[in-house]
Amino acid sequence: MKLIGYFRSSAAFRVRIALNLKGIAVEHAFRHLRKGEQRAPDYAAINPQKLVPALVLDTGEVLTQSLAILEYLEETRPEPPLLPNDPVGRARVRSLALIPTADIHPIQNLRVMAYLRQTYGQSEEAAFAWSRHWIETGFEVYEAMVANDRRTGAFSHGDRPTMADLCLVPQIFNAGRFKVDMARYPTLKRIFDNCMKQPAFEAAQPSKQPDAEP
Amino acid sequence: MKLIGYFRSSAAFRVRIALNLKGIAVEHAFRHLRKGEQRAPDYAAINPQKLVPALVLDTGEVLTQSLAILEYLEETRPEPPLLPNDPVGRARVRSLALIPTADIHPIQNLRVMAYLRQTYGQSEEAAFAWSRHWIETGFEVYEAMVANDRRTGAFSHGDRPTMADLCLVPQIFNAGRFKVDMARYPTLKRIFDNCMKQPAFEAAQPSKQPDAEP
Repeated sequence: MKLIGYFRSSAAFRVRIALNLKGIAVEHAFRHLRKGEQRAPDYAAINPQKLVPALVLDTGEVLTQSLAILEYLEETRPEPPLLPNDPVGRARVRSLALIPTADIHPIQNLRVMAYLRQTYGQSEEAAFAWSRHWIETGFEVYEAMVANDRRTGAFSHGDRPTMADLCLVPQIFNAGRFKVDMARYPTLKRIFDNCMKQPAFEAAQPSKQPDAEP
Repeated sequence: MKLIGYFRSSAAFRVRIALNLKGIAVEHAFRHLRKGEQRAPDYAAINPQKLVPALVLDTGEVLTQSLAILEYLEETRPEPPLLPNDPVGRARVRSLALIPTADIHPIQNLRVMAYLRQTYGQSEEAAFAWSRHWIETGFEVYEAMVANDRRTGAFSHGDRPTMADLCLVPQIFNAGRFKVDMARYPTLKRIFDNCMKQPAFEAAQPSKQPDAEP
C-alpha cells in the first residue's frame, strides 16, 4: 500500500497514526499542499477531490477521505481495535471523531482560508481569527462531551486509543498554529499528553515526516 | 427511540431516510434551528453540540452526529444494509458519504453563514454565493467519482441505496435553496431521481415533516 500525504495535513496525520498503531508498513508519497501539487492532473486522476490523503492499495484501487480509510483499516486489520465493541460506545467514538473531522477541520482548512482572503478580501489576520473561532467552538463541545463522562479514560473513550483520539490529536497540533489556548480544555490536553507518550502518535507527527519543513 | 430533528436539517434528513429504509419507528421531536431552539439549556444538556439530530435511545443514552447514528443503525439493525459487503466497496460508500457530510455541509450550514454576516459584515447575497461555491465544489467531486465508475448503478454504489445516497439527497435539497444548477451533475441528478422514487426517501423530505413550514 502507498499513502499519499503531506506532513502538515491533519487528515493524513490521522491515517499515519492508525497505520502505526496497527503495525502496517506502507510506502509514503507526498503532495505539497501549499505548492498546490494536489491539483496536478496526475493526482486529480486518482483522487478527484484533490485533497490528501489517498491510500493506494496493492490492487491499484484508491481510497480517499481519512475517516473512510480509518474504517477500512479497522475492518481489514482489526488489531488493535480503534473502536470499542459495543454499538453505543462505537457511536460515541465516531461522534467524537466527527467533531474535528466534520465540524472543525473542513471549515478552517487551507482552501477555505484561501477563499476568505481571495474572495472576501479578508486579511491574513482575519482568516487566522476565523480558524481559531471554529477550533475553539469544536473544542468546547469535545471537552463538554469527555469531561464528565464515565466512559472517558486515559483516552477519549477508555484506556486505549480510539478513532476519536486519532482525529483529536492532529487537530490539537493544528490549533497550536492558531494560538488556541489549550488550558481552556483540560481534558483534551490530558488526552493529548497521553497520546503523545505513545510511539504510534509520536512518530506520526508532522515534524517527523520525510517531507517536513521547518 | 426518539429522534430530535428539524424539518430542514440535512443531517436529520439523512437519519430519517435510514429509519424509514430499515423500518424503525421512532418518536419525533423538533428543535427550530432558525429560532435557535437548539441552543436552549435543556437541549445543550443532552447534546453539547447544540446541533440536530440527536437520537435518544430507550436507555436514555443520546447519540449525536448523523454519520455516527447511521453507523449505529447499520450495526444494530443490519437489514436492509446501507453499506456493501466488501471492505473496498464500504470505503467507497463512506468516502462518498463524507463529501456532503464533511466537505460541503459543515462549511455552508446556518452557523457558518451567520458568522460570515455578523463577523465579516457580508451581505445575505455574499453568504449565499459562499454556500453555492462549496456545494458546487463538492458536487463536482462527487460527480467525478460516480460518473465513470463501474460500481455506480441506479444509486451511488450499486442498485440499492447506501449511506452515500442518504447523505447526497439532503444536500441536493439544500442545493435547491442556493440555486445550484443540477444539470451540471447529470449522474447526481439521475441518482437523486431514483432515490426520490423510493418511499423511504420521499417520506423523509423536509416538506413532509410535522414541523415543516411553507
